[in-house]
Amino acid sequence: MNKRLVNFTAGPSMLPLPVLQRIREEMLDYRGMGASIMEISHRTSEFSELRAETVSLVRELLRLPDDFEVLFAAGGGVLQMALAPMNLIARRPGRKALFVHTDIFSGRAIEEAGKYGNAVVIASGESEDFSAIPEVDSAALDSTASYLHIVTNNTARGTMWRYLPQCESLPLVGDATSELFGRELDLDPFGMLFAGCQKNLGISGMSLVLVREQMLGHAIRETPSWMNCQVLADTDSMPSTSNTFALYVCNLMLHWFKSQGGVKAIEGVNRAKAARLYAVLDRGDFYRGHAHPAHRSIMNVCFQLPTPELEHRFVEEAASEGLYALRGHRAIGGLRASMYNAMPMSGAEALAQFMEEFERRA
Amino acid sequence: MNKRLVNFTAGPSMLPLPVLQRIREEMLDYRGMGASIMEISHRTSEFSELRAETVSLVRELLRLPDDFEVLFAAGGGVLQMALAPMNLIARRPGRKALFVHTDIFSGRAIEEAGKYGNAVVIASGESEDFSAIPEVDSAALDSTASYLHIVTNNTARGTMWRYLPQCESLPLVGDATSELFGRELDLDPFGMLFAGCQKNLGISGMSLVLVREQMLGHAIRETPSWMNCQVLADTDSMPSTSNTFALYVCNLMLHWFKSQGGVKAIEGVNRAKAARLYAVLDRGDFYRGHAHPAHRSIMNVCFQLPTPELEHRFVEEAASEGLYALRGHRAIGGLRASMYNAMPMSGAEALAQFMEEFERRA
Repeated sequence: MNKRLVNFTAGPSMLPLPVLQRIREEMLDYRGMGASIMEISHRTSEFSELRAETVSLVRELLRLPDDFEVLFAAGGGVLQMALAPMNLIARRPGRKALFVHTDIFSGRAIEEAGKYGNAVVIASGESEDFSAIPEVDSAALDSTASYLHIVTNNTARGTMWRYLPQCESLPLVGDATSELFGRELDLDPFGMLFAGCQKNLGISGMSLVLVREQMLGHAIRETPSWMNCQVLADTDSMPSTSNTFALYVCNLMLHWFKSQGGVKAIEGVNRAKAARLYAVLDRGDFYRGHAHPAHRSIMNVCFQLPTPELEHRFVEEAASEGLYALRGHRAIGGLRASMYNAMPMSGAEALAQFMEEFERRA
Repeated sequence: MNKRLVNFTAGPSMLPLPVLQRIREEMLDYRGMGASIMEISHRTSEFSELRAETVSLVRELLRLPDDFEVLFAAGGGVLQMALAPMNLIARRPGRKALFVHTDIFSGRAIEEAGKYGNAVVIASGESEDFSAIPEVDSAALDSTASYLHIVTNNTARGTMWRYLPQCESLPLVGDATSELFGRELDLDPFGMLFAGCQKNLGISGMSLVLVREQMLGHAIRETPSWMNCQVLADTDSMPSTSNTFALYVCNLMLHWFKSQGGVKAIEGVNRAKAARLYAVLDRGDFYRGHAHPAHRSIMNVCFQLPTPELEHRFVEEAASEGLYALRGHRAIGGLRASMYNAMPMSGAEALAQFMEEFERRA
């Protein structure tokens, strides 16, 4: 086997080695059944147990308030950007949803929501090139709206909400694709949280959707059964055949989080990894971090070098040392180190040392 | 390792052993990259090549007319039952789609389509307990409709369309989830064909959608980007992160089909497997096949025994001999042997022998 990469890809992302090894070990024979987990029905007792255990692990690890439903939806985060308004925008007669525009993926969410009602941007970081989470004027928190959508961590520009907006009667919808289980989030203000699984929860193709019971019952007529949260809640997320393998990998990831000490311990590691890299950025003028220091993500560290040529060389030389996928988002350029939960401290350390060495040589 | 089951499950279904072995072999290191296929971005050249090759294999194996787009959509067949009308029902101003009701899954499709327009059932097998594909009166083929939806093979009752309805200007939409790549279908009358991947094309959570270019451009406003076939076509089925692992398994399945001699050869095996079981059913009165002989599926053989007690014993004793998952659809009961492409002739033979032996002992 080739040496495994130190993998900074933004997603689908690296998985912990023990998770991959377990998948490999069970590939031909899931827990003595004589068949792979891929080859058994979602209606078997074995899969039911796996699903129920996965839900319990989500509840336990997030200390999820009891009134949240734990749902597994088809597709990634961008499909859930349609699921959210389909289920929630008609909660109030005006069919209005508020948005804080913080990056590419809030932009995608605004676009999707506009198909189902009125998507109103109440604050935008665009004029500052999304280097900061914009301030939300409390006067803009229109209480006739159905919800306020935020992206809790922004992968492309490397910003993160440190303090959630205070909305009182307006529930938050959070796209936490790039950080759920990566730091302790205050869940109280949220009516819904969703996360595509391919960054912190396993593989692409499925999303975790957390939604409060009392938010349901307002799906618009055009909602496909598989995107109707009430239907998902009523069928244990199986209106028909579900994504069994992605759920299995998600289950293994949650077990691994537990083995690491849970979300608080993982957050500690994530903060340490990010701090190590930000310290390199802050040491001089060679590396320029994109995010304003007060808004820095602990998952995605985005930065630039003095010239595009140096950035190109950086990516190539890093790759030759096994430090993989450090190019920025294809729509933006620059450099980016995505360090989700599976990235160990040693990976951040290796990159930091490479950065120091590269600067010396440049 | 435990002895592998002879797996008759209706889906997610058994996979060929060489496919599972290949997945296992590459689990920690995809083609020398030093990372799993699960851990690399959908934007890498490695994944692009895999996707492009997969599309080529689909085209080659199905001898697909050039004007079909080959798309990979999120979710299984039931989500595509919404995707089809979202994209196609507004082709004509009346927003009308016609349906032939042949089983549970045509029923689900009618329900989904009704959210986006007028779903008109022009023929139904319900009065005959779906034991036959109903005749379609050509006078019912309303040419102002946008399309006619059929389920080409019906898993729960074990029926199959032998001859497609002659529709001329009305395009067919085919749900071929349970048989695509399992027999040579005449693709000419179809405007769209879709198949969840978990029966013949790998694992659950993704669907293959084939749609003619000229059918596109009519998606209703409420269509999520990820369900808009034009968007999927314009982005190589990647409006955002796609289901990379399911595509990889699909690719391995298509290679395996080729290694077996292609669709025609696979159809030969499928016909032989089904014929072996139907011969047992037809030999006496002990086993009663559900489908009318002229409408029998070659993928799903549905039958009953004289009493529910005998059926229970049958399932238990078969299981103890490694013949797995022979219970009928949970909403229907009875017995069912699903034999998709991965089931070898030896599996059908083992079941046929067990059935003969069970009858002797009963």
